[in-house]
Amino acid sequence: MDLNSLLRPRSIAVIGASNNPGFGRASCANLIDSPISERIYFINPRPQVIMGKQTLEKVQDVPEPIDLAVIATPKSTVIPLLKDAASMGCKAAVVYASGYSELGREGARDEQELRQVAEELGIAVCGPNCAGFVNNIDGIKAFGLTITIPPRVGNVGLLAQSGQVCNHLMSVKQLGFSYCISSGNNAVVDNVDYLRFLAEDDNTKAIAMYLEGVRQPDALVEALDLAAKRRKPVVILKTGISEKGQKIATAHTGSLTGSDSAYNALFSKLGVLRVYDMEELVTTCMLLSYLDSIPTEPTFAVLNLSGGEAAIAADLTHLNGLELAEFRPETLDKLGELLPFYATPNNPLDTTATLAQDPETYYKVLKTVMADPNVGFIVVSLRVPELIDSSNQRTQMGLCNAITRAAQEENAKPIIIVSSLSGQRAPELLEKYTAAGVPILSSPKYGFSAIKHLVSLLKYQRPETVSDMVKVKVAHTGQVKRRICSEHESKSMLQRYGLPVTKESLVNDEESLLRAADAIGYPVVLKVDSADLPHKTEAGAVKLNVSRDQLVDAYGEILSNVRNYDPNAKINGVLVQEMLPPGMEVIVGVNRDEQFGPMILVGLGGILVEVFKDVAIRLAPLTKQEALEMIESLRAAPLFHGYRGGAELDVDALANLLVNVSKFAFENSDEVLELDMNPVFVYPKGQGVRIADALLVRNA
Amino acid sequence: MDLNSLLRPRSIAVIGASNNPGFGRASCANLIDSPISERIYFINPRPQVIMGKQTLEKVQDVPEPIDLAVIATPKSTVIPLLKDAASMGCKAAVVYASGYSELGREGARDEQELRQVAEELGIAVCGPNCAGFVNNIDGIKAFGLTITIPPRVGNVGLLAQSGQVCNHLMSVKQLGFSYCISSGNNAVVDNVDYLRFLAEDDNTKAIAMYLEGVRQPDALVEALDLAAKRRKPVVILKTGISEKGQKIATAHTGSLTGSDSAYNALFSKLGVLRVYDMEELVTTCMLLSYLDSIPTEPTFAVLNLSGGEAAIAADLTHLNGLELAEFRPETLDKLGELLPFYATPNNPLDTTATLAQDPETYYKVLKTVMADPNVGFIVVSLRVPELIDSSNQRTQMGLCNAITRAAQEENAKPIIIVSSLSGQRAPELLEKYTAAGVPILSSPKYGFSAIKHLVSLLKYQRPETVSDMVKVKVAHTGQVKRRICSEHESKSMLQRYGLPVTKESLVNDEESLLRAADAIGYPVVLKVDSADLPHKTEAGAVKLNVSRDQLVDAYGEILSNVRNYDPNAKINGVLVQEMLPPGMEVIVGVNRDEQFGPMILVGLGGILVEVFKDVAIRLAPLTKQEALEMIESLRAAPLFHGYRGGAELDVDALANLLVNVSKFAFENSDEVLELDMNPVFVYPKGQGVRIADALLVRNA
Repeated sequence: MDLNSLLRPRSIAVIGASNNPGFGRASCANLIDSPISERIYFINPRPQVIMGKQTLEKVQDVPEPIDLAVIATPKSTVIPLLKDAASMGCKAAVVYASGYSELGREGARDEQELRQVAEELGIAVCGPNCAGFVNNIDGIKAFGLTITIPPRVGNVGLLAQSGQVCNHLMSVKQLGFSYCISSGNNAVVDNVDYLRFLAEDDNTKAIAMYLEGVRQPDALVEALDLAAKRRKPVVILKTGISEKGQKIATAHTGSLTGSDSAYNALFSKLGVLRVYDMEELVTTCMLLSYLDSIPTEPTFAVLNLSGGEAAIAADLTHLNGLELAEFRPETLDKLGELLPFYATPNNPLDTTATLAQDPETYYKVLKTVMADPNVGFIVVSLRVPELIDSSNQRTQMGLCNAITRAAQEENAKPIIIVSSLSGQRAPELLEKYTAAGVPILSSPKYGFSAIKHLVSLLKYQRPETVSDMVKVKVAHTGQVKRRICSEHESKSMLQRYGLPVTKESLVNDEESLLRAADAIGYPVVLKVDSADLPHKTEAGAVKLNVSRDQLVDAYGEILSNVRNYDPNAKINGVLVQEMLPPGMEVIVGVNRDEQFGPMILVGLGGILVEVFKDVAIRLAPLTKQEALEMIESLRAAPLFHGYRGGAELDVDALANLLVNVSKFAFENSDEVLELDMNPVFVYPKGQGVRIADALLVRNA
Repeated sequence: MDLNSLLRPRSIAVIGASNNPGFGRASCANLIDSPISERIYFINPRPQVIMGKQTLEKVQDVPEPIDLAVIATPKSTVIPLLKDAASMGCKAAVVYASGYSELGREGARDEQELRQVAEELGIAVCGPNCAGFVNNIDGIKAFGLTITIPPRVGNVGLLAQSGQVCNHLMSVKQLGFSYCISSGNNAVVDNVDYLRFLAEDDNTKAIAMYLEGVRQPDALVEALDLAAKRRKPVVILKTGISEKGQKIATAHTGSLTGSDSAYNALFSKLGVLRVYDMEELVTTCMLLSYLDSIPTEPTFAVLNLSGGEAAIAADLTHLNGLELAEFRPETLDKLGELLPFYATPNNPLDTTATLAQDPETYYKVLKTVMADPNVGFIVVSLRVPELIDSSNQRTQMGLCNAITRAAQEENAKPIIIVSSLSGQRAPELLEKYTAAGVPILSSPKYGFSAIKHLVSLLKYQRPETVSDMVKVKVAHTGQVKRRICSEHESKSMLQRYGLPVTKESLVNDEESLLRAADAIGYPVVLKVDSADLPHKTEAGAVKLNVSRDQLVDAYGEILSNVRNYDPNAKINGVLVQEMLPPGMEVIVGVNRDEQFGPMILVGLGGILVEVFKDVAIRLAPLTKQEALEMIESLRAAPLFHGYRGGAELDVDALANLLVNVSKFAFENSDEVLELDMNPVFVYPKGQGVRIADALLVRNA
């Protein structure tokens, strides 16, 4: 959908223009001063003058074709007005009215009708139940709420389903915006359409999004992929982590809130930065919008004016899982020369308060640290004061000059100020820092979380980690019929994909039992194969470590166990399996998300991992790089790497298994509803992995 | 030490008073306007007028006895000046000079001399290497740095080792202070002396502390215990979590930074709230200083003006491990009547934006929610704007009136505003909210972390959890000689404390072997007992599940294994042990911290727990309640409570074991350096726990 008529209109009719408080008046007030002021028409059936402009009775009275109709009238009038507007060549509309799908079934029917009409008329509708948008590039504010502080012009594209959230975010001083869009119910133009628009817009450097749920998961994936390919960071505040949050979001805009882990699986695949509140959204976007480029190294230097602050910074770096740069010997030598005799060159670097009085040396310290190739960027933890007076002017202006000078020179590395305390900043300092591209992040928690996002973006954007397999298989919305497969059925299907299952045969008499076991080699494992026995061990259907002597007895015993346990179980026969040597037990699974299709899971086996929830989940299909990242992201990952004298395990083979399972799940996404491979044994390096048991649930 | 002469002086001499920038001038400027202005004397060998006051040549020229000497001159002059001051009856001094223990060994010697002289003269010295203090109760600022924004008067006592940190914190607008103390190197008056002073001070409601390390661990424990007994919350920003942080803190004030887990063990015992940066310190103290009393229920209601914000609040509550109150049916009914028809009564409660225009109904909603006995307090997530103008005045003042009215009525429950975005607040709103005792917390992460601290305080302050066994056995600083005990030696010592070790006998020949095994009952376990074999299994020194038939062979086998493994191992004999039935494996341990004495550890057994670091650590001795809290604080705790159809385990017996081990370690703290009981088997409820293996390291 082409959003230019909507977001960059050249003529606008405000229908329901008014002098009385409400959407109509706010829209007039917000639009009256725009550069296309003469081509903005206020429509009201009762002739009047609004903010100096004479109203027209109806949209048909407008003397020229209109691009955009801003409809500030109640729900019942919307469809007729859209038709009137269409007759004037109108291609887009903002509909503020509420009372649609957010109110339940009846409202959803009305929304469906609105969608249909809009599509028939070819009108790109923003809303309903929205607050409109601000286009800061062309200076057009088609916005229905009163704007107390106009959004600053800048390079962040803001997209929010909630009008209130949009309004709050728009007014922050720290961010400048290209567009601010309150999308409401997304009945016609969808979130993902705006997202694509912003991803392609050259005035937008980073995208900030408040998301409750999506209607078109595949389009979301495509739009996020487009942004990733264009190296445009997307920061998303997605609600619905908690059950309560999910309930509210659904009540709120009536959209489907997908399962939360599927969003994480998607976001980590596409390098989306997920944040959890508005302040984090603002701080992270601020950092991204200030930086000319993403740093090349994830390790950084921290500078402080006191040992106390340096110690706090060291702890915060550690607590956020970030890594300080190891200064090179030549850096340490040079710092030793520059700093007072009682200072210890170190990272975090306590420059001592003395340097606050000596901007020239402070500048040299910055340059020295920047010159270290291990340093990707510099974090200055500093409290930028809210007031400049005679007592602090020399110090603060001196520091500001040193920092802004170093930040603006050729080949400078980014300098980021993390304030130790939130609050107002003196305007004269703020202005200088802003002009030099030095962001002042509001407080330590938010500052370090923004830096963490920056580092993860940096790591994501490294070419080798970018997936070129980004597509999503959205599950059929049709009826699903779950059919549980027996172990042998499950494994046969996996084997066809070259997955390393156990050697095994299904036998139905003692003769073939002996033949199969001889071929496999002793000891063997015997299991009764049945789709009706998901808990085989409990049913007495399994015998491990069976020798040739014990074979026939064991065979009879497990069959009779099962007949006692469940006389109605349909038995396919007895599975004769090789007895695998013990290895590290891992679980690998597939789950099909209704919105985003198959997700692959990996974690250590056993009950503890379940309690600790130490699993990695990503959308299929996976690249090898992604599979490796999943494994290394487990807290239990050290166990793969020779922990406490254990063997270095075959992580490579496990990664290959994940890739192949993801391929299997992706290519058969209509059929594969769930797959549990538990346990998978991981052996020492070079010795591979083996699937000991598997349970597949198919769509029959 | 009586700190009244230091912190509440009635006459002061500023030695090194000056018109030139530096500590001397700043001290004069900070003191000149104090209520005891005429009893403040500026001393400078060269006669001059400073800020309108004629200087005196030397302290002996002061016409009356002085309480406090503020010494703003270099290090070399300090001791003679202290002596001069003492001759004038001076009982206290602030020493700003640096160059002491923070610079290493030579400085430490000078500091030692300073301490000695001060003690001989009976002078309570604040510092050296400090910035002094502000006493807001009497209006005395004996502070050596320029104060741009004077600290607001209030009920928070601030104590910081770092002068810069103290200075930053003093200037925040959100907090009001009783005292602000920069303690520096704590050479004479120690941190814990100030802490005790603040704990006893009726003008101080909450204590904010920046701590790098302590010199007198036992005194720290006593002071914190005093504060806990007086129900005075202590919030501590303790650095040194990361190794880098620890290195810097040591370089900084030359104090001993204790092992970080010992601090956690101490803080959780005494209800100290640990924070990780200055903003968190400020937000948490702000919340505590505003509340008239700690709420009685940890569950709370969240109110929002939009569904988007409600969804975010729900997620933040969930992410912070906090619990929303379940509204009672009558609350839901009443809310249903009050709210617009399209709103859904729920917690978090989306009142809808409509209620922002209807303060009377908003007030009724607040009262309804407050009346619910499940609600301990109310969190309003609201963006308090930085600007009030015609566009938002009605709404914002309406909300403010409703909230402050509800907050001030009799039996009101606390209302806490968590702002969705940091920034300035309109002064007219701030004033009203402040006057009504409604704190505006700066941003969601800090707001919810402060609420988390409040809830943990509430839980700590419940009478049944307060330990009356707070004492610390500080380890001898003398030489420690580690002696490893064999399993049998270790267990014999434990058995004397009634700890449930295995039935076992040490035997040295086949005859006594048979007799012992017969008495214990078969099967048995055989282990070679030797202090030289910490890795018994590796040495082949263990045989499990031994029947009477196998007994003699097994006995010979393990002895010969050990002789092969380590011919020099000193063998005490063979341990014949009962074979314990399998149970949940747990590790219980003791480690003696150099500063705080024995710490007790509990965690699940096995390698995974090590990787996940899922252990609880507290200082000995433990109450039963503390032991139970430790067990339940494990992430693996669900495994004790019938997880996935498993049995409910004997948590009570495990808690008793922890209590008794803590008693053992505490009473023998000179001897017990380390103790590992691994594994301890925990059996189903009523069946107790058993110590299967133990390794004690004693101070020989």
